Amino acid sequence: MTDNEEKVEVRRGLKDVVFDRSPTTFIDGKAGELRYCGYSIHDLAQQSSFEETAYLLLYGELPTQAQFDAFDGALKAARELPDALYDIIRTVAHAHPMDVLRTGVSALAAFEADVDDKSHGATLAKSIRLTSQVPMIAAAHHRIRNGFEPVAPDASLSHAANFLAMLLGEPSSDEAAGLLNTDMVLHAEHGSNASSFTARVVTSTEANLHAAVTAAIAALSGPAHGGAAEDVMHMAQEIGDPARAADFVKAKRKNREPVMGFGHRVYRAEDPRARHMRDGVKRLSIEMGQPKWYEILEALVEAMSPYARHGVNVNVDFYAGVVYYLLGIPEDVFVPIFAVGRVPGWTLQVLEQADQNILIRPRLHYIGPGPRDYVTIEAR
Amino acid sequence: MTDNEEKVEVRRGLKDVVFDRSPTTFIDGKAGELRYCGYSIHDLAQQSSFEETAYLLLYGELPTQAQFDAFDGALKAARELPDALYDIIRTVAHAHPMDVLRTGVSALAAFEADVDDKSHGATLAKSIRLTSQVPMIAAAHHRIRNGFEPVAPDASLSHAANFLAMLLGEPSSDEAAGLLNTDMVLHAEHGSNASSFTARVVTSTEANLHAAVTAAIAALSGPAHGGAAEDVMHMAQEIGDPARAADFVKAKRKNREPVMGFGHRVYRAEDPRARHMRDGVKRLSIEMGQPKWYEILEALVEAMSPYARHGVNVNVDFYAGVVYYLLGIPEDVFVPIFAVGRVPGWTLQVLEQADQNILIRPRLHYIGPGPRDYVTIEAR
Repeated sequence: MTDNEEKVEVRRGLKDVVFDRSPTTFIDGKAGELRYCGYSIHDLAQQSSFEETAYLLLYGELPTQAQFDAFDGALKAARELPDALYDIIRTVAHAHPMDVLRTGVSALAAFEADVDDKSHGATLAKSIRLTSQVPMIAAAHHRIRNGFEPVAPDASLSHAANFLAMLLGEPSSDEAAGLLNTDMVLHAEHGSNASSFTARVVTSTEANLHAAVTAAIAALSGPAHGGAAEDVMHMAQEIGDPARAADFVKAKRKNREPVMGFGHRVYRAEDPRARHMRDGVKRLSIEMGQPKWYEILEALVEAMSPYARHGVNVNVDFYAGVVYYLLGIPEDVFVPIFAVGRVPGWTLQVLEQADQNILIRPRLHYIGPGPRDYVTIEAR
Repeated sequence: MTDNEEKVEVRRGLKDVVFDRSPTTFIDGKAGELRYCGYSIHDLAQQSSFEETAYLLLYGELPTQAQFDAFDGALKAARELPDALYDIIRTVAHAHPMDVLRTGVSALAAFEADVDDKSHGATLAKSIRLTSQVPMIAAAHHRIRNGFEPVAPDASLSHAANFLAMLLGEPSSDEAAGLLNTDMVLHAEHGSNASSFTARVVTSTEANLHAAVTAAIAALSGPAHGGAAEDVMHMAQEIGDPARAADFVKAKRKNREPVMGFGHRVYRAEDPRARHMRDGVKRLSIEMGQPKWYEILEALVEAMSPYARHGVNVNVDFYAGVVYYLLGIPEDVFVPIFAVGRVPGWTLQVLEQADQNILIRPRLHYIGPGPRDYVTIEAR
């Protein structure tokens, strides 16, 4: 070590380091509170829609009816992809959906007339387009890889219902669309999570919006960020029976392995988003005659309850995966659904970063060898 | 404000925040020192090659002859792209080279057999492949957009010479290849700059290597990170005559506008990489009968000298742009060249992050409205 190690404060993972201010998302991890622009996530989950919540995030206020209609109209008008994008999706159709989504959004930059206009207005307009295009890429890919043609968008449908119809190739029930709508409200924004933070770092170099969202998708593709819902579904399938949940937890704790869907970097109390998906799992699994999924999850919560006082509580993804499964969505599309819901959060953070920009560039502390003389290869 | 603003320390831009330790790159911004694994950048610039430096970065030691031969052989063997990638490049060929490079690297994930193997060994092997594939995408795109077929790689050529030949469609002089080789040694790695930091954030979610490098390219595409060389060339063209440099600087300072190629987040002294490119500009501009470019740059340095004591010194990009210009490289390929050189640095940082991983997730300080009741749209 050549440096003064003792004097350097190393903040690994940037845990609890505050890198900027934001007027959008309030999170109290200890109390388990989440608010967008002052509105409780519970009110929004129960009363709002993805479209309205996206408006709230991008403009800071809930819309009037006229504002909502204009915004919703813009979202619906943006439901189109250039033909060339379908060619690209076909070329990489065998890849993981997140690799395809990342490639598709990156390629969209080539077909966006205002790609390098970084003004607030242009970025907002591009954000609305991306909000509608991201679900179209995810849905088209899923159709194409299964040998079907992409489904045309339907302007009579909400964001969630249209996505489900394009993904699954058939109209969804109101209940299913409602549940996905709630899920997308819950996932729309969540402060400086790793993918939104990535979008900010990329924006801080003055890169374009497509670069920032491409990078955010890259970050979300990691199992430690976007993959929890998929992991929970695998776990529920592995357990298979509510009676086996307690032993499963015991074995995991003994081997010091994590139980999927529990714990969160920010929340020490229960993730406030979890209850809304819990209600959905319960309703859906009973209605569909598959109550065991809800029962397995509840048995897991019971078995994990001794750890709740240490701050290890269920997070939103604990329930989300089973909801997606019951809606008939294949497991490798779970993370793309998260991405579809998170677009407003990413683009909002790009706007905030760009409006008060500063290059995000932290430091590494050097702990390698001291100065050495170069030796020619013959003398090594 | 709902929080205790006075108690929160906001570290905007994460300036001087140390987020981890690394045994690779030592930077002393005040003294203007840069070392890779203990070796001075001056020794490496004068005596090493891009290939040897890449080995040093990825393995921590300079290679023996046998180690070098094996590594160089692996780099040369990796000079190939799947046919489908040329299709994708053609589809987006009209876009900016950085948008194309980002899309191409993202798409490569679909053709990488070990894409989701995150072991150290697999990541290292994929890093070597990407080191050879990134320049091929940049070169193929430039050929295709100009209506030519991509040039086949030549295993008898070094990394720099092969890239130049594939980019420009004709063999380069030894001098040109040597200068680009030096440029790539100088750009190979630079601590936690915004693109390498982005690669680490993406890796921290356990995303795959292609996701991390795609995101790094996204960050590098921003003018505030990778765009300086291009900006300097534009400035040199605008000035046009060494005699006008002093007035140009005076006008910029009066308008409080930055002079491109001066200043760096880390260096307060002269960027230690700059002198090696300065020598190159001088030699090349005289040899090519265009001494005015060197003279314009030197006149700018002279005019900026009063600000040097305030830490505003030339950085490496001040000279790099003119070198690229004299080599016949179009200006929008300047940033891709930076990317080509930086691949070892990005992949090295992915390896370091993955080997001792922790999720990188800082916080934002909330300064928005207090709790508000949800009001239905009819009542707004």
